[in-house]
Amino acid sequence: MISKLIDAIVNKKAPVVAGLDPNLKFIPEHILKEAYGERGETLEGAADAILKFNKGIIDATCDLIPAVKPQIAMYEQFGIPGLMAYKDTVDYCHEKGLIVIADVKRGDIGSTSESYALAHLGKVKIGNSKVSPFDADFATVNPYLGTDGVKSFIDVCNENDRGIFVLVKTSNPSSGEFQDRMVYEGEGSEDTGELDKLEGAEETAQSPLFEVVAKKVREWGETSMDGTYSNVGAVVGATYPSQGEAARKLMPNTYILVPGYGAQGGKASDLKVFFNKDGLGAIVNSSRGIIAAYTKEPYSERFKPEDFAEASREAVKDMIKDINENAF
Amino acid sequence: MISKLIDAIVNKKAPVVAGLDPNLKFIPEHILKEAYGERGETLEGAADAILKFNKGIIDATCDLIPAVKPQIAMYEQFGIPGLMAYKDTVDYCHEKGLIVIADVKRGDIGSTSESYALAHLGKVKIGNSKVSPFDADFATVNPYLGTDGVKSFIDVCNENDRGIFVLVKTSNPSSGEFQDRMVYEGEGSEDTGELDKLEGAEETAQSPLFEVVAKKVREWGETSMDGTYSNVGAVVGATYPSQGEAARKLMPNTYILVPGYGAQGGKASDLKVFFNKDGLGAIVNSSRGIIAAYTKEPYSERFKPEDFAEASREAVKDMIKDINENAF
Repeated sequence: MISKLIDAIVNKKAPVVAGLDPNLKFIPEHILKEAYGERGETLEGAADAILKFNKGIIDATCDLIPAVKPQIAMYEQFGIPGLMAYKDTVDYCHEKGLIVIADVKRGDIGSTSESYALAHLGKVKIGNSKVSPFDADFATVNPYLGTDGVKSFIDVCNENDRGIFVLVKTSNPSSGEFQDRMVYEGEGSEDTGELDKLEGAEETAQSPLFEVVAKKVREWGETSMDGTYSNVGAVVGATYPSQGEAARKLMPNTYILVPGYGAQGGKASDLKVFFNKDGLGAIVNSSRGIIAAYTKEPYSERFKPEDFAEASREAVKDMIKDINENAF
Repeated sequence: MISKLIDAIVNKKAPVVAGLDPNLKFIPEHILKEAYGERGETLEGAADAILKFNKGIIDATCDLIPAVKPQIAMYEQFGIPGLMAYKDTVDYCHEKGLIVIADVKRGDIGSTSESYALAHLGKVKIGNSKVSPFDADFATVNPYLGTDGVKSFIDVCNENDRGIFVLVKTSNPSSGEFQDRMVYEGEGSEDTGELDKLEGAEETAQSPLFEVVAKKVREWGETSMDGTYSNVGAVVGATYPSQGEAARKLMPNTYILVPGYGAQGGKASDLKVFFNKDGLGAIVNSSRGIIAAYTKEPYSERFKPEDFAEASREAVKDMIKDINENAF
């Protein structure tokens, strides 16, 4: 699946993904009014508004971008109707030829991770039939539970030609709290039920936790290669370029999904370190910067709320130009 | 909310939670046949079977136990119909007076975590109305993203009298890979965009990562006290009693949700370290051991698949007896 994503990035000259995170406060009044008029100020009304808003943005940008990244929390907060809008969004993106990165940040013990993997990337067996429940192309995965929590995802990826992006260094302000913590490089204990107090620990190498996770991602990735790159990617925030540089070196064949550009503060010049010399290796996400463009300068001067989708198209063009000019 | 859970535990003399993780392979043939007959071998058919199975177990055990813990992955794998069965299960448990711990293991950057928290524990605002999407009493939370990813949950808990259990040391075989890794106690970097290579690091105290997380849980918990205990609890697996002992000492006012008893290998005598001297402080989960009891000795000899719910009731009684006799 990563080779399919790379082909789309190269063809469109756009290492860019649009984050479809439709917070109600980003949705223009005329869409809300129509949806609430038809379905009331209910979960169903909110879900209708989200889907209408998404379709506008997808229609206006699908020829420019290779992929979208819906953040499922924004749909899950509207319960079952919200998740139906999520599923309809995934399907609509596929109809428009877009690759879908499901930002679900799931992760659990092995057998439970398998269920999440089947839900989002695979097929569940029901009697003698097999069904794809949510049918995304990639999913984001939380590594805190270790290998058995991630391996189930990789197995499902290998069976269905799908991919994952594992959280390595996230873009948020508190991400350093645990992820930058200096740790010993030696293996953690596994399955012993005992604390392995490392003997002579002061002599072993030290690195931040996210680097230990990055090395695991590289190792996991070797079990799912698809051309030069692996179907096991990583998430590293644009807001932390020095960690990005370290992560890039530790995972040469890993695609990096980079959130945090734009609204969260990451600049295109910060992105250089995330790319490999082949011009590949990273795909940059922007959510609010694209979907709420009509509310922000310079677009708010040129576009009315009714023209939100056109504003998003302009924002995508500007983002692609910015990255191609300043990130290489 | 934790005081409500404690009252229920004390009243029923049962520090026990039933894990409602309805894998299709645990569901008796007669239920599957009926559901598939009505709805086909479809997501809807699987969801119907799950809900019927759950209701049987809930009816047979609700007078004995204070709480249930549905694992949402088991429902999410059946897409929208599966999640409808999840929501119906939550509502049915509430009708029967049970407290619901949503095992969702969500966690994201602050603003996104807020959406997850509203989805599972709070109310979303839609126009001028407020709606509870999934309406559980507790949710499990992944701490890998740090304070801003957890604080949004706590804020929603404080507004709605709900609680969370933060993953500290999980029950699975690979949990030590990162969670037992020896780390420096000094703070990780926060919001600097730079790697803080700790100077003189060899002189600072060292402890496993899960202990650093445990200390954060205690700190977070102080912002949501509800009597002696906090609404911010922790997850520590029964499969790791020595880590459980360390976690108990580091978080004296934190309730610990203990998975891993029974099918995963944890024994009642291993559970002593998880309880405080007041006989409180821990609630032990069993999933397969309860819901699939009719497939396992000694229950499989006495109960037919048609009597699965009665087998679950016997398994719950035996579990409560085992814990009350051997875990204190």
